[in-house]
Amino acid sequence: MALRGRDIVSLRDLSSEEILELLEGAKKMIPIAEGRKASASLEGRLVAAAFFEPSTRTRLSFETAVQRLGGRCITIADAGLTSMRKGESLSDTIRMLSSYSDAIVLRHPSEGAARLAADASDKPVINAGDGANQHPTQALLDLLTMHEALGTLAGLKVVLLGDLRYGRTVHSLAIALAMFGAEMVLTNPKSLGFPEELRGDLDAMGAKISEEPDLRRAVRDADVLYVTRIQKERFGDEGEYRQVAGSYRVDASTLEGAKPRLIVLHPLPRAGEIDPEIDRTPHAAYFRQAFLAVPMRMALLDSILRARGG
Amino acid sequence: MALRGRDIVSLRDLSSEEILELLEGAKKMIPIAEGRKASASLEGRLVAAAFFEPSTRTRLSFETAVQRLGGRCITIADAGLTSMRKGESLSDTIRMLSSYSDAIVLRHPSEGAARLAADASDKPVINAGDGANQHPTQALLDLLTMHEALGTLAGLKVVLLGDLRYGRTVHSLAIALAMFGAEMVLTNPKSLGFPEELRGDLDAMGAKISEEPDLRRAVRDADVLYVTRIQKERFGDEGEYRQVAGSYRVDASTLEGAKPRLIVLHPLPRAGEIDPEIDRTPHAAYFRQAFLAVPMRMALLDSILRARGG
Amino acid sequence: MALRGRDIVSLRDLSSEEILELLEGAKKMIPIAEGRKASASLEGRLVAAAFFEPSTRTRLSFETAVQRLGGRCITIADAGLTSMRKGESLSDTIRMLSSYSDAIVLRHPSEGAARLAADASDKPVINAGDGANQHPTQALLDLLTMHEALGTLAGLKVVLLGDLRYGRTVHSLAIALAMFGAEMVLTNPKSLGFPEELRGDLDAMGAKISEEPDLRRAVRDADVLYVTRIQKERFGDEGEYRQVAGSYRVDASTLEGAKPRLIVLHPLPRAGEIDPEIDRTPHAAYFRQAFLAVPMRMALLDSILRARGG
Repeated sequence: MALRGRDIVSLRDLSSEEILELLEGAKKMIPIAEGRKASASLEGRLVAAAFFEPSTRTRLSFETAVQRLGGRCITIADAGLTSMRKGESLSDTIRMLSSYSDAIVLRHPSEGAARLAADASDKPVINAGDGANQHPTQALLDLLTMHEALGTLAGLKVVLLGDLRYGRTVHSLAIALAMFGAEMVLTNPKSLGFPEELRGDLDAMGAKISEEPDLRRAVRDADVLYVTRIQKERFGDEGEYRQVAGSYRVDASTLEGAKPRLIVLHPLPRAGEIDPEIDRTPHAAYFRQAFLAVPMRMALLDSILRARGG
Repeated sequence: MALRGRDIVSLRDLSSEEILELLEGAKKMIPIAEGRKASASLEGRLVAAAFFEPSTRTRLSFETAVQRLGGRCITIADAGLTSMRKGESLSDTIRMLSSYSDAIVLRHPSEGAARLAADASDKPVINAGDGANQHPTQALLDLLTMHEALGTLAGLKVVLLGDLRYGRTVHSLAIALAMFGAEMVLTNPKSLGFPEELRGDLDAMGAKISEEPDLRRAVRDADVLYVTRIQKERFGDEGEYRQVAGSYRVDASTLEGAKPRLIVLHPLPRAGEIDPEIDRTPHAAYFRQAFLAVPMRMALLDSILRARGG
Repeated sequence: MALRGRDIVSLRDLSSEEILELLEGAKKMIPIAEGRKASASLEGRLVAAAFFEPSTRTRLSFETAVQRLGGRCITIADAGLTSMRKGESLSDTIRMLSSYSDAIVLRHPSEGAARLAADASDKPVINAGDGANQHPTQALLDLLTMHEALGTLAGLKVVLLGDLRYGRTVHSLAIALAMFGAEMVLTNPKSLGFPEELRGDLDAMGAKISEEPDLRRAVRDADVLYVTRIQKERFGDEGEYRQVAGSYRVDASTLEGAKPRLIVLHPLPRAGEIDPEIDRTPHAAYFRQAFLAVPMRMALLDSILRARGG
């Protein structure tokens, strides 16, 4: 495949053909991710997982992906304990990591950190979330979950629910959905819509976007309901938060009248946005989505790192 | 062996036959734990070490056990840095870990957390300490140390010294000693005796238990002196603490008149309960006990995780 | 080689012949450190990285070295989360680690901790920095960088710039330079000169040392400019700090008139001591130095740990 040595900073670094190829690659990785099949495709490869912001789920899924393929990791799991505390620039830290490892997985609180790192590094950099900006591998695994459950991406009707302003996972996802001609329905609190720049980009791509503040109406003929966290700290006062959070909570009554094949996704962790009673319904796809993080990241790492002849 | 795929939440999940078989298995693991013999029995296996409460010793001994057998680890070493901080339920966290890994080793500050995790996980869960409740693998390695040094468990006279109320290691151990017909002598500050529920369980098992507040007298014809930490925060005032801690400190004079083969155990870390002058005597078995954590956990992991034909 | 099973607490634990042999060994490790060549020389070996003080760079380079050679690691990355917090003595912690692993890499805030650990451990201990005392593996990689760039150590003129009092890396390095007959020029703020004891040792070794407070003059016919961090907290008032830090900052004008082959070294992280404009000049050797940490530590670990017949 064509990704050998490439940086993945934004989903736009990938063509739609490359994305589809990655999704197929990920499906083949599933038995390895489940531990039922052995692989040594990353044997001898060392990946630096540099998490300058805590993200247990993302970090562990990358470390799992590397190790299930026979590779090794070095890990920075806490910004507070690093040489950055001693005043080191990100660029110096990345140069160090790129001289130790074969690829860098970077999580960073600042928007644009991943691009800066990719410029400083002579090894591939994979953006695992930079501020409120991008989280391309999350978007890939979201796509994989949809593709596995529904067999296609084109023509899907996807409701994006919750905080669309600060939730970086939906930013990367929206671009991907636009690339594949899916239809987006935005259901968000007034103050938490898409950032203007993103909205402009999506319009320029010819994305099919509508708005429907009423959740039940939005869900009615949707194929996917993508739920995000609504973060307390985004609101001026507690009362406003409670009201908003309450009106965007998904429970059994929300899904009355939905398509039987509707799947509910959530990047997790959740904190009340989805009632656990949904867990037992066939709509619940978020645990599958959590698992698919591993084969998706396997496919990406394998494509970027495997030897040419491999 | 019969443990394939089993959860180990409490020592009572194991029969006495299974425990004896594990002790024999652990003895065979010693040369591997010492690095003198290679093993690949966990090759291709990934174990999640989820420590939601710090415990360097327990975490490192599990990671050592996994890696000496050729397996790999993913690790959560600090509760404060996890998605639980973002409000995620333990059950959601465990479902995620169980979809990444082949088994979960869980340390958690809340009693009952391990049982809850075992219910949420479709992979085996090993309790590495849940609150003041249970710590079954510690009890197993305590038994192993006694069995290796004294050749038997039945009929041993074991003094349990110190904090028997909050010290979870002695809770699991007491049950194990009752299973094997050992005799227990309790030497504890008045306010720090066994919890009533445990005492009831032990009585129902027909455990041989006596009390002897005088340490020297208790030690006189004992085979094992098991020392626990007396934690300052359990006492109302400093003066009471000093008095109690002082009267339960083990030094050379404490062991005058003890059997030559008496062994002193301590789950470590110690903080003054045992005078370092004991380290140089043949009674000191606590460093051996610390080492035996590795082969004991190897045997357990191997028994739970190895392939059927292996 | 002769280092099998040896502790490396101070650079003085090594003869100059052994150091030269290590430098040659490190050069052969370079293709393995770069990931271009496979090695399994530490397969089956487990190294404990015990960092009781954060040092991302040193920790990751050791973990990289171990893993690139096929070995495994167990890691303590934060003092605050360890059993030492529960009052355990360093000696007890080290005895535990030495019963789990095949070697211990120790970073500790207290001077003398590494020697104490070596006494408590029956496995080799490598000092990765103990307080303001010694950091022998840093000195080795400094020597390696000079040797690779300049082909020799004897007769080099090395300017040591900055904080020579608290900067432990220059302490170990100065001893090494004295061993190999290099000439040292000290360029430091008045209050931050070599500790008296070290100066005495160097004089006893017959070291060639001069002082030149003017940086440009010092650099004029130097082969190496070794820059250290000047730490704010060493100064009484902010004004004094700014003045000193400013006068020891290396930029293009500092190097006017320097030898074309002069190399600039820095143990990193840097925080303003070297202007990034130097990065693009042939003088900048600090990123190469950062990388050479890996092959240097590989050679050391390999020499200490590999099987006799290996």
